[in-house]
Amino acid sequence: MHNSFGKILKFTSFGESHGKAIGGILDGVPANITLDFEAIQLELDRRRPGQSAITTQRNEPDKVEFLSGIYNKKTTGAPIAFIIYNTNEKSKDYHHLAHAYRPSHADFTYDQKYGHRDYRGGGRSSARTTAAIVVAGAIAKQIIADIDIKAYVHAVGDLELNKAFEQLDMSKIETNAVRCPDEKMAEKFIEKIKIIKKKGDTVGGQVICVINAVPKALGEPLFDKLQARLAYAMLNIPAVKGFEYGSGFKGSKMLGSQHNDLFLKDGTTITNYSGGIQGGISNGMPIYFKLAFKPVATLMQTQKSIDDKGNEIILEGKGRHDPCVVPRAVPIVEALAALVLADFRLIKQAYS
Amino acid sequence: MHNSFGKILKFTSFGESHGKAIGGILDGVPANITLDFEAIQLELDRRRPGQSAITTQRNEPDKVEFLSGIYNKKTTGAPIAFIIYNTNEKSKDYHHLAHAYRPSHADFTYDQKYGHRDYRGGGRSSARTTAAIVVAGAIAKQIIADIDIKAYVHAVGDLELNKAFEQLDMSKIETNAVRCPDEKMAEKFIEKIKIIKKKGDTVGGQVICVINAVPKALGEPLFDKLQARLAYAMLNIPAVKGFEYGSGFKGSKMLGSQHNDLFLKDGTTITNYSGGIQGGISNGMPIYFKLAFKPVATLMQTQKSIDDKGNEIILEGKGRHDPCVVPRAVPIVEALAALVLADFRLIKQAYS
Amino acid sequence: MHNSFGKILKFTSFGESHGKAIGGILDGVPANITLDFEAIQLELDRRRPGQSAITTQRNEPDKVEFLSGIYNKKTTGAPIAFIIYNTNEKSKDYHHLAHAYRPSHADFTYDQKYGHRDYRGGGRSSARTTAAIVVAGAIAKQIIADIDIKAYVHAVGDLELNKAFEQLDMSKIETNAVRCPDEKMAEKFIEKIKIIKKKGDTVGGQVICVINAVPKALGEPLFDKLQARLAYAMLNIPAVKGFEYGSGFKGSKMLGSQHNDLFLKDGTTITNYSGGIQGGISNGMPIYFKLAFKPVATLMQTQKSIDDKGNEIILEGKGRHDPCVVPRAVPIVEALAALVLADFRLIKQAYS
Amino acid sequence: MHNSFGKILKFTSFGESHGKAIGGILDGVPANITLDFEAIQLELDRRRPGQSAITTQRNEPDKVEFLSGIYNKKTTGAPIAFIIYNTNEKSKDYHHLAHAYRPSHADFTYDQKYGHRDYRGGGRSSARTTAAIVVAGAIAKQIIADIDIKAYVHAVGDLELNKAFEQLDMSKIETNAVRCPDEKMAEKFIEKIKIIKKKGDTVGGQVICVINAVPKALGEPLFDKLQARLAYAMLNIPAVKGFEYGSGFKGSKMLGSQHNDLFLKDGTTITNYSGGIQGGISNGMPIYFKLAFKPVATLMQTQKSIDDKGNEIILEGKGRHDPCVVPRAVPIVEALAALVLADFRLIKQAYS
Repeated sequence: MHNSFGKILKFTSFGESHGKAIGGILDGVPANITLDFEAIQLELDRRRPGQSAITTQRNEPDKVEFLSGIYNKKTTGAPIAFIIYNTNEKSKDYHHLAHAYRPSHADFTYDQKYGHRDYRGGGRSSARTTAAIVVAGAIAKQIIADIDIKAYVHAVGDLELNKAFEQLDMSKIETNAVRCPDEKMAEKFIEKIKIIKKKGDTVGGQVICVINAVPKALGEPLFDKLQARLAYAMLNIPAVKGFEYGSGFKGSKMLGSQHNDLFLKDGTTITNYSGGIQGGISNGMPIYFKLAFKPVATLMQTQKSIDDKGNEIILEGKGRHDPCVVPRAVPIVEALAALVLADFRLIKQAYS
Repeated sequence: MHNSFGKILKFTSFGESHGKAIGGILDGVPANITLDFEAIQLELDRRRPGQSAITTQRNEPDKVEFLSGIYNKKTTGAPIAFIIYNTNEKSKDYHHLAHAYRPSHADFTYDQKYGHRDYRGGGRSSARTTAAIVVAGAIAKQIIADIDIKAYVHAVGDLELNKAFEQLDMSKIETNAVRCPDEKMAEKFIEKIKIIKKKGDTVGGQVICVINAVPKALGEPLFDKLQARLAYAMLNIPAVKGFEYGSGFKGSKMLGSQHNDLFLKDGTTITNYSGGIQGGISNGMPIYFKLAFKPVATLMQTQKSIDDKGNEIILEGKGRHDPCVVPRAVPIVEALAALVLADFRLIKQAYS
Repeated sequence: MHNSFGKILKFTSFGESHGKAIGGILDGVPANITLDFEAIQLELDRRRPGQSAITTQRNEPDKVEFLSGIYNKKTTGAPIAFIIYNTNEKSKDYHHLAHAYRPSHADFTYDQKYGHRDYRGGGRSSARTTAAIVVAGAIAKQIIADIDIKAYVHAVGDLELNKAFEQLDMSKIETNAVRCPDEKMAEKFIEKIKIIKKKGDTVGGQVICVINAVPKALGEPLFDKLQARLAYAMLNIPAVKGFEYGSGFKGSKMLGSQHNDLFLKDGTTITNYSGGIQGGISNGMPIYFKLAFKPVATLMQTQKSIDDKGNEIILEGKGRHDPCVVPRAVPIVEALAALVLADFRLIKQAYS
Repeated sequence: MHNSFGKILKFTSFGESHGKAIGGILDGVPANITLDFEAIQLELDRRRPGQSAITTQRNEPDKVEFLSGIYNKKTTGAPIAFIIYNTNEKSKDYHHLAHAYRPSHADFTYDQKYGHRDYRGGGRSSARTTAAIVVAGAIAKQIIADIDIKAYVHAVGDLELNKAFEQLDMSKIETNAVRCPDEKMAEKFIEKIKIIKKKGDTVGGQVICVINAVPKALGEPLFDKLQARLAYAMLNIPAVKGFEYGSGFKGSKMLGSQHNDLFLKDGTTITNYSGGIQGGISNGMPIYFKLAFKPVATLMQTQKSIDDKGNEIILEGKGRHDPCVVPRAVPIVEALAALVLADFRLIKQAYS
C-alpha cells in the first residue's frame, strides 16, 4: 500500500541506502515481451553515481539482478522481482549521524513517524531508492515501445534554457554530462555546477519531459486524470517541489481567447497549451511537463542543527554528494512517466 | 477504480452535469462524529454558481441530500452516500453541441475514449462534478477539525498578490467575492475579472492553500509522499495546470545553503522552504502550496472549431459561464486537501 | 475501501435497511452497452420480499432508479449510480430493539465496532443491502452476456437434491417458488419450508451455481485465483457459512488417480473435478460451486437474550421474515458471480 | 495487483519454483517490533519438503534472507523484502514436460493465459510459492502476538477425526509428522498416507484452523467481512477446494432455533455456531474454519494426457512429490490467517 505505485501495472519498491539491497517487484507486465537487458542497464547507468565530474563521486556500479518473471529472456506474465545489491554499504561510517537531525532531510520526520530509524545514508528516505524506479521504468518503456519519452535539463539554478522543446534536438541529450540538448547551454550549466560544487554548496534546477507518439484516450475522467497521475508520480521523486504541464503557471496569466487550442480538421490542434491532455485524457498531441527540483540538502559546508534530544550540534560537511540533482534525475523522470503511461495503456486495453 | 479517491477514507464520485443528479459515497468515515450539516451546506454555497457578479449567472441551488451512514445526526461508520439533484438539467438546449468539438474541452478526448458521450453541459467532464467533492471534503474537514485548511486567490491573470501567506489575515478571505484576504488586491482582481467578462473572454489565476496545525508524521515514504497525494488531488481539479509546494519553482533557483531549513531546539524550523513536508512526511510546520488555473475554455465569443466528422464549424458564444474560475475553486481546493489529510490521519492511527 | 468490491469493475455499496435509500456506484463499466432495464428489474424482482408464500410477507417494491452513467439507454463509461428507496422505512417500530442484542445477529459486533448504531431493521448489516448487489450484478451480466450463470436451490435443511447439475434442466429454475429445477424436489422443499414457517422457526439450505460458456484464462495466479475471488464474493452474502467448488469437500476424500481430470485432444477434460478452474485460472469447462446458508436468525418464537447493558431480556417473535433464505439468495449468488467474472474479463482484455 | 494480498498490511509475492529465488515484500509492518528470526525460520521448516517420511523427499533447505525494513533486529516501518534461493533449481530436468499438459495442473491454463510459460516444476503455479507466504505470515504472527492461531490436520482421505477442536490438546500438533493433535488418529493418518504413497497415488485431506483470543470488532460490514477475507486467503492455497467456518455445511441443515448462539451476560455466547464472526465482524469468541484439500495431481503412476499440440502422450510417474498435502499445508493456513487478522487489526486501529 504505502510503497506501491500503479493500478494494473504495479510497482512495489523496497530497500534502504545502506541495507543489503534495494529493488522491487513489477507486477502486471504482459507476457511474451522479449526484454532488452542492455537497455535496462543503460538506464541504470544514466542514473548511477560517479558517472561524471558534476555528479557525486561515490562509485556504485548498480548492477540489476532479475529473480523472477522472465524465462528465456521473455516476460512470462508473472511478477518481475529484481535486486540491486548495495556494494558500498559497509564502507561508510554514519555513526556520527545516528542522533543528528540534518536540515531539510527526513531524519526528523522519520523519527516522528517510526520511532526507530535506519539512519545510515538516509535509509529509506535516500534517493538511492530511485534506482529501483529506474529499473521498473526501463521495463515499462519496453511495454510501450511505440511511445517516445524524453526528459532533459531545462534549468540549473537561475540559468534557464530559452528555447521551447520543439526547437531542440533530443538526440543530443546524452552528449553531455548535464543532459541538456542545447550544447551551449549545457556548457554553461556544467560550469555553474562546478563553481557551486567548489564552494561546497548545491543548487536546484528544472527538468522538462516530453512524450511523443502518445495514443489517444489514455487517462480517466475523475479521479485519475492523466496529469494527476503524472504529478503524483513526479512529486514522489525526493527533491521535486513543483509540477506543471502544458501552459502551466504561465497559462494562469493568459486569456481564454489566447489559451484555447483550436482544432485542425484531423483533430490535432494548432497550439498545444493543453499539453496533450484534455479533460484528463490524452488527445494525441505531445504531452510535456516541467519539474522544479530543490537544491540537495547535504552540503560540504558546516551547518548548525539539533540532535534527537533537542541539543544544538554542528554538522561537518563531509561525504560525497551531488552538487545538483537534475542531471541524474532525467532517467528517473522518464522511468516514472513510462510507468504511468504503460499502466494507462493496459487499462485502456481492458475496455477495447 | 477510475472514479475513486483515497485509501482508507475513500470517496467515489458519480454524476454528469445534466443527468439526474451528481453525488458520491464517502467510505471509511469514523463512527460517532456529530455532523454539522450547515457547515457542509456552507461549503457548497461557497462553490455554487450564481453567488456573485464575477461568477456564472447560472442559478444552481445545490442542496445536498444524505442517503446513508448517518443516524441521529451522527456518523455510524457505514458509507455516507449523498446526492445533489441537477435542477437545471432540462432548462438548456445543448443539442447544437452534440457533434461539436469545443476547443480545449474534453469533447474530443471523451469521444476518442468512450465513443458514446453525454454531451449536455460537458457531461462527466463538467466542473459541476466538483460539487460532490466539496461535500465529501466538508465531511473530511469535520473528521480533522483540529487541522486548519485555508485557501485563497493569489493571482488573477497577470495580477499577483505581493505578500506571503504569513502576512495575510485569513479571516478576510470570505469578505469579498474573489476570496482574496488582501482587500485592496481583491478589488483589483474583481475589477479585472469584470473587464474580461465584458469582453466575453476568460482569464486564469492562482490559488494558494495553507494548512496550519498539521500533526507530525502524516505521509508515507515512497510512494505516497504527502506532497504527491496533494499534487494528485489538485491536478484532478478540471482547470489546474500546475502545483508547487514550499519553495516550489523558486526553490529550484536557490542554493542549498539558502534553502535548508535550520532547526530550532524544539524541532520547528526557522524558515519553511520545505513547506511543512520533509521526506514526504509532515514535520508540523505549515503546509502551503500554490496552484495554477488555466482560463475557462468556454468563451462568450465566436470561435472556429470542428465537429466529430472533421467539418469546420463556428461556435457561437452563448450560455452562462465563469469568466475566471479561481474564486469558486477555493472551496474545492480546501475540500481535496481535507480528504488527503483525513486519509493520512487515519492511516497514521493504524500504526499508533 | 471497506464497502467496495472488484478491481477494474468496482462496485461500491451504500445504505441501511431503514435509511432513506440503498444503492451503489458501479464504476468501470465499458461504454456503449445498450442496457436492458427490464432485465435489471427482473433480477430485483427475483430477490424482492413478498414474492411468494415461502418468503417474508414484507412488501418492498424495490424499484431501481439510475442517476448517472447512462445516456439514451446506453452506458457512457462514466460511473453508474443507482438508488432504491426504502419505501417501508417509516412503517416499522424497531424501538424495542434499540438496546437489545439479538442472538446470531450483528447487533453486538456493530456496537463493539462502531459504538453508534442504526438499529432499525439491522441497519447496515441487513440483508436488504443485497438488493444493490443484485442491480450491480444485473449490469455485470449484460457486460458478459455470452457467459451463462445459473444458480438454484440444492438443499433445504437436510433435504438434498440427489442429482448433479448436469442432469438438471436449468430452464425450470424459475417455474417454482423455491427455485429448484427439479420439480418434485421443489415441491418437497416448499412443503418443508411451510412446516417450519408454521412453527415460527427457520431453516438453512444450499445453493449451487453453474457457469457455462466461460472464456479460458480468467483469473490470476497468486493472489487472485478465480476460486478465491468467487469464495470472497459469496462469503460476503450475509448467511453464507461455506463454499466449495468442483469436487469440494468430497474431493478431499478422493485419491489423485480418481480425481485427476484427464484431457481430451481438444483440451477439454473427461471429468471436471477441477470445477472449471486449474491453477486459479479458468480452463473453459463449466465452473460450479456450492454454498451453505445458515438458518435465518430472526425467529417467530420467544428467545432469551441480553441488552447492551448486559441485562437478560426476552425477545418476542414478531415481524415478517423469511423462514428460509435460499430461494431469494439465488439471484444474489448469480449477481456476485457476474461481478467477479466481468471484472476478470476486463482484466484479461487489458493483456490482449 | 495480481500478486498482492491485504489492504494496509500488504504482501506482494514473486517467484517460480525453478527460477533463481522466490520471496516477497511485506509492506505496512509497524515499526519497532523486535523480530524473532528463529520463529520465522521455524515456520519455514514446518513447511519445507523432506521433513518427514510422509512428505516429498526433495530436500530444500529454504533459508530466508531479509533484504530491507529491519535494522538492529527491529522493524523500521519500511517494506520488508525477503528472498529464498531455489538451491535445487538446476538439479532437475523438466525438459520432457516442456510441451506436456499434466492432468489437473495449471499447464494448460497458463498456456492459455500467457502463451509463454516457465514449465520447470510448475513455474509460478508451483506450491513452492507458498514458502514466501509462510515467511510473511510468520512476521504477521509477531505483529499480533496476542492472538493465538493454530491449524491441524482433521482428515486424510475418508479418515476423519471424530472430535471437535475444543476436545483437543493443541500443544500436541507438532508431536507427529502429520500434524494432528490426537495421537491415535495421527498414527492412522500416517499409516494411510504411507500405503497410498507406496501405490504411487495421492490423497486429499482436511485442515481445521482455530483462532483464540481474537479481539472484538475485526472485519468490515460489506464488503470485507472477516469470513470473506479468510475464505479468499485460503482459496488462494493451490489445492484448497472448500472453506467453511462455524457451523459450515452442517449449519445449512439446522433450524434457527438450534443454530442461534444465545448470549451470556458478558456478551460471550453459549454455543458458537457463528464461528466467532457475526455480521462479518469478530465477536471475541474463537474463530474456526475447515478446509478441503484435493489430492496432489502429480502421481507416481503412468497417466494419459495431451501435449500443447493436442497429441496424446503418456506421462511417466517420476520425481519426488507429496503423497498428501495437508501436513505441510498447516503452517500455510496459519500464515494466511495471520496476514488477514493483522491487516484487520491495523484497520481497526485506524478508527480507534
